[in-house]
Order: sequence, then structure tokens, then C-alpha cells
Amino acid sequence: MRGVVMHGPGDVRVEEREKPTITRPTDAVIKLAATCICGSDLWPYRGADKVDATPMGHEYVGVVEQIGDAVKNVRVGDFVVGSFMASDNTCEICAAGYQSRCVHVVPMGRVGTQAEYALIPHADGTLVATPGQPDADLIPSLLAASDVLGTGWFAAVAAEVGPGKTVAVVGDEAVGLLGILAASQLGAERIIAMGRHADRQELARRFGATNIVEECGDAGVEKIKELTDGLGAHSVIEAVGTQESMMQAIHSARPGGHVGFVGVSHDVSLPGREMFYSTVHLHGGPAPVRRFLPDLIQLIWDRKIDPGAVFDLTLPLEQAAEGYRAMDERRATKVLLTL
Amino acid sequence: MRGVVMHGPGDVRVEEREKPTITRPTDAVIKLAATCICGSDLWPYRGADKVDATPMGHEYVGVVEQIGDAVKNVRVGDFVVGSFMASDNTCEICAAGYQSRCVHVVPMGRVGTQAEYALIPHADGTLVATPGQPDADLIPSLLAASDVLGTGWFAAVAAEVGPGKTVAVVGDEAVGLLGILAASQLGAERIIAMGRHADRQELARRFGATNIVEECGDAGVEKIKELTDGLGAHSVIEAVGTQESMMQAIHSARPGGHVGFVGVSHDVSLPGREMFYSTVHLHGGPAPVRRFLPDLIQLIWDRKIDPGAVFDLTLPLEQAAEGYRAMDERRATKVLLTL
Repeated sequence: MRGVVMHGPGDVRVEEREKPTITRPTDAVIKLAATCICGSDLWPYRGADKVDATPMGHEYVGVVEQIGDAVKNVRVGDFVVGSFMASDNTCEICAAGYQSRCVHVVPMGRVGTQAEYALIPHADGTLVATPGQPDADLIPSLLAASDVLGTGWFAAVAAEVGPGKTVAVVGDEAVGLLGILAASQLGAERIIAMGRHADRQELARRFGATNIVEECGDAGVEKIKELTDGLGAHSVIEAVGTQESMMQAIHSARPGGHVGFVGVSHDVSLPGREMFYSTVHLHGGPAPVRRFLPDLIQLIWDRKIDPGAVFDLTLPLEQAAEGYRAMDERRATKVLLTL
Repeated sequence: MRGVVMHGPGDVRVEEREKPTITRPTDAVIKLAATCICGSDLWPYRGADKVDATPMGHEYVGVVEQIGDAVKNVRVGDFVVGSFMASDNTCEICAAGYQSRCVHVVPMGRVGTQAEYALIPHADGTLVATPGQPDADLIPSLLAASDVLGTGWFAAVAAEVGPGKTVAVVGDEAVGLLGILAASQLGAERIIAMGRHADRQELARRFGATNIVEECGDAGVEKIKELTDGLGAHSVIEAVGTQESMMQAIHSARPGGHVGFVGVSHDVSLPGREMFYSTVHLHGGPAPVRRFLPDLIQLIWDRKIDPGAVFDLTLPLEQAAEGYRAMDERRATKVLLTL
């Protein structure tokens, strides 16, 4: 089968890879309907994480082609969505809603879902079938649920977004934009998007942003304070993962406020004294997308949300390298790869 | 009046200081019934914070001697307890329960309550009167409510302690010990005290600890994991404020667990990547003791809790220097100063 492999920074190739087969009775193999490139795939692309002929991709939707003997929750032919972290969904950590830290977790990044087929470990715990075969126009949104929507949703939940709250969103890439959508769905009163890219501001407003702050760093924090009687936001979503974005998020929250951070941390070091005196709540990490998948799929199925709008470039899998380039150069927010 | 002044590391003197008088209509002056030395007073004593002829002390109980014209909630003659952070208790931040970050906050450390009298700003917001004049044996416990009990309580609340939960407590000084008492009152199923000092272990058990772990650092974390099916504690109270104690706390919590940290951070730097992948909740800072004071006073008044047991050395104010020495050398857990 064909699949995306990264050989080094900037070196993305579509190659012949071995088609996966079931090795454990809890596995499934799916035929992908679509896959995509994640903001986090840019870390190795830019040299910040190491790769060595690494199969890429961890987001996926598709049709179940084969299941192991122990699989009971999905059947061959089902259209399914799964999280970027395969989980048994039965352990004590999963039961508490932290499937991304399941005691038997398998990161799907090791599988590489930018390919024609993918092996899904813990199929019963990981995969959620849609109510039927989806219309083609729903596929981008269902694919978004696999990571970027689920991650933005988790960030909003981690930031304790709710009715009456003012929410600030640091980061205008796909996760931040879908954090805005989540905040809107969760009833936030005011949603302040931080970012200066005109196209993304438009999408931010479409997803529910009520205010835009173009300044970043300390100047951005000052603007948030101005908009909140000097207090800061109740809830802040951090969707970048750098030192500057984390400090911008922490400083934008009011005392007692909540920061939900989902940008994969790179070279971040949080000063203890500032954390102490900020009195904010900090929570984040790899999103337990599985917790939210059933609800998110239903919202998409009922056409109440349209997270697929974050895909502003669609390419065939064979042109994955151009997709990576477009996201790296910020010509595209998020790239969908067709099969 | 007589009061404690620190002139430099290790240099504590009891000197003549000017007796405070009311300067604003919202002030009160109290005559102290007792005061005490805080673990955080040891930071400057050990040279970790700067001092320059600094009046010391921020914990206090006593009788109202004088009130400003605007003060309505307490009267001359009332026996009162207040927090180490004076707050108006009416602003939006106070209303949300974060009185230690009141928009008009005055840290009582600036006032220096290791003295015969103290000026209390925002008297209406800060002071809580006891139901009557307390019996003498209740005074240590009421004094503990002013900071060390309220801080331990906040740590337990920040760590989301509750029924069915396993709680680990990092730090066996007074705040940690009262974190144990708080966890017990809040219904924790299991409370694991970490520390190797025999006297403190005894007090820990009296306050509700069910297990003792003597190892610290990574070895301590391993013990916590052993006691929790390899998962870690649901809730962790951090009551020290060093790099080692913070990492011990974060590593002792399970994915999705909660760390409540109240040790005043010194030279702490939290690695972003570890914070990210830990998936713990982190919350702490200067405790909003005022939030809890009415309930804590009632529990003490009704003799349901005995936090005053943390005072294992009582000295007259004039011997404050010996009190600091005893705490510095860990000969005493916490020192009460009589007047």
C-alpha cells in the first residue's frame, strides 16, 4: 500500500509500505476514507523532533476491513472514527476519562495513518462507528474529530469553559480554531481569538469568536486585561506549545482562572514563582479524544457543527509532501489527504 | 509596642516598634492574643528571600481594639481571626473565592503580626469574629486557621480531595500535616504521608494519615505507585516549594489526577514536556484562607478538629529568636508566641 514516510526535516515521501494485518485478537484493520496532516507533524518536519524513515499520521476515518476474534463493538463494513491514542477504554484511567493515558495506550503516530490502510490496536476501546455510512461532505468533519476537534474540545473542557465565561484562545492554527468552536458549543459568553492572520480570523468568527486580539506576547495580555476589567479571562485555551504561548496563556488568565493547554510542549519551562502567584489552574496534555468522540460524532452527524471547515487545502495522498510544505509555510491551516 | 524584626539571615530581634493606629476608615487595630512563626518565615531566615529591618509575621488572632468609621462587620472587643492576606471580600476575584488575590489585597507580611498590636486593612473583608471569647485552649487552633490550617485546607481543595480518593502529601511540616487533617475532613479514603521524622509521623497519623512513606524523590514516587496499583494518587498535596518536592508531587499523581501546591516556590522550574505528558491538574498559590475561615472557625469552636496540635513549642514573644532557631533546626514543627 502507499503511505507517507518522513526521512528527515523537510523530507516527506509517499512510498510503498507493507499493508497491515491483524496480529492480536483485539486489533482491527481499516481502509482509510481520508487522512490529514497535523500541526504536530510540523515539529519533526522543522527538525524539533527526530525522525528516521518514520511512517507519519495519526488521524483517521475509514471503513473496517478486518477485525480480530475478540472485537465486538465494531463490525467489518462499519464506518469508524478513532482517536490518535488507541486505548482499551476499560482501565481505571480510561474510566476516569483519560483514555490518552490508558495503561495500555498505543500512540497512533507509531502506526502512521497517512496511508491507505491502518492497523488499529484495542479496536473495541478505540473505534466509534458512525450511525451509518456518512455523506461525503461529512467526512472532513468526522476526520477532524479524530484529533484536532477532540483536542480543541479537551482544551476548552480543561479550561473549564462554560456559560457566562470569557475565554481567550492563544493560537490560531486548527486546534485553536476548533477550541473556539468548542467554547462556543460549551456556552461561553465571550470568546477572544488571538491571532493576526485574516483568513483565520474569519474562520474564528464563523466558529464563534466575539473579539479578535492581534497583539501577541505581553501586548496581547494587556489587550485581554483591557477587555476583562483588568482581571484576565476566566478560561484560556493554549494551542501552540512554546514558552511564549504558555506564558501568554498563563498571564491572560485571572486569579483562580483556568488554562487548558494542548499545544505539544517544546522547550517550555514554567517558572514556579510565577505559577505560584498566578493562582491559575493548569491542565492539559495529549487530549483524551475518545471521551468526547460519541458526542462529537453526533453533533457532526446532526450537522450542528462543521469542524471540517478547518481544512482549507485538499490533496491526494500522493501529494502529501506539498501538503506539508503548505502548512509549514502557513499557506494552509490544515491539509486533508484523499485516498 | 514590642515586635519581631529581621535584620538579615539568622538575625531576628524583638524591638520597640511604633504601635499602629487607624489611617483609613476601613482599618481596624487588634491586640494580639497569640502569634506564631511560619515555615515561610524561614526562607528569609535562611537567606533565600531578602530582608532589611523587616517586621515579621502574618498570622494572628486577637481582640479588636479600634475600628475605622466604615467598619461594620466587627466591633471593638470581638475576638477575631484573619487571613495572612487582607482582602475586601467584595471584588469579583474575592467573590470567586480567591481572596488572596483580591484586587485590593494587602499581604499581612508587610504589617508584621509578630507584635503586640497589628493594623488590619479591609477589616470588614478580612476579619471573622468567633462566636464568643474563646477558651484559652482553643487559641492555638484558631491561630492555626489564620494561615497554616487554611493553607493546608486550600491545598486539599485544590487537589480535589474527596470521598473514595487516595491522597499523597509531600512535606511533613505544619502545612503538610494540616493538609492531612483537611484531607481527612474532606472524606479521603486513604492518606499517604511522606516524611521520615518520627514525631511528625505520629501527628500525621493523629490527623488522619493511613500510610507513611519514608522515601523521598523518585523512591518516594515508586512507593506511591506501589500503593496505588501502579497508577499514582488521585490527589497530591505539595507543601514544600522546592524543585524536588514539586516534581515528586507531579510524578506521584495519576493521569488526570490533581496536584494542589502551596509551598512557596523557590527556584522551581517546571519542564513543559513533563507537565504536558503527565496530564495532571496543577493548582495552587497563596491560599485564599478567607474562603474557608467561617467553616474552619466553626469546626474548631465545636472541637471537631484540633489543628493547634501542630504547635510543639510555645515561647513568649520576647524569645522569638529562639523560636526561629528551633524551627530552622527542625527541633520544632511550629512555634507559638505568647503575649
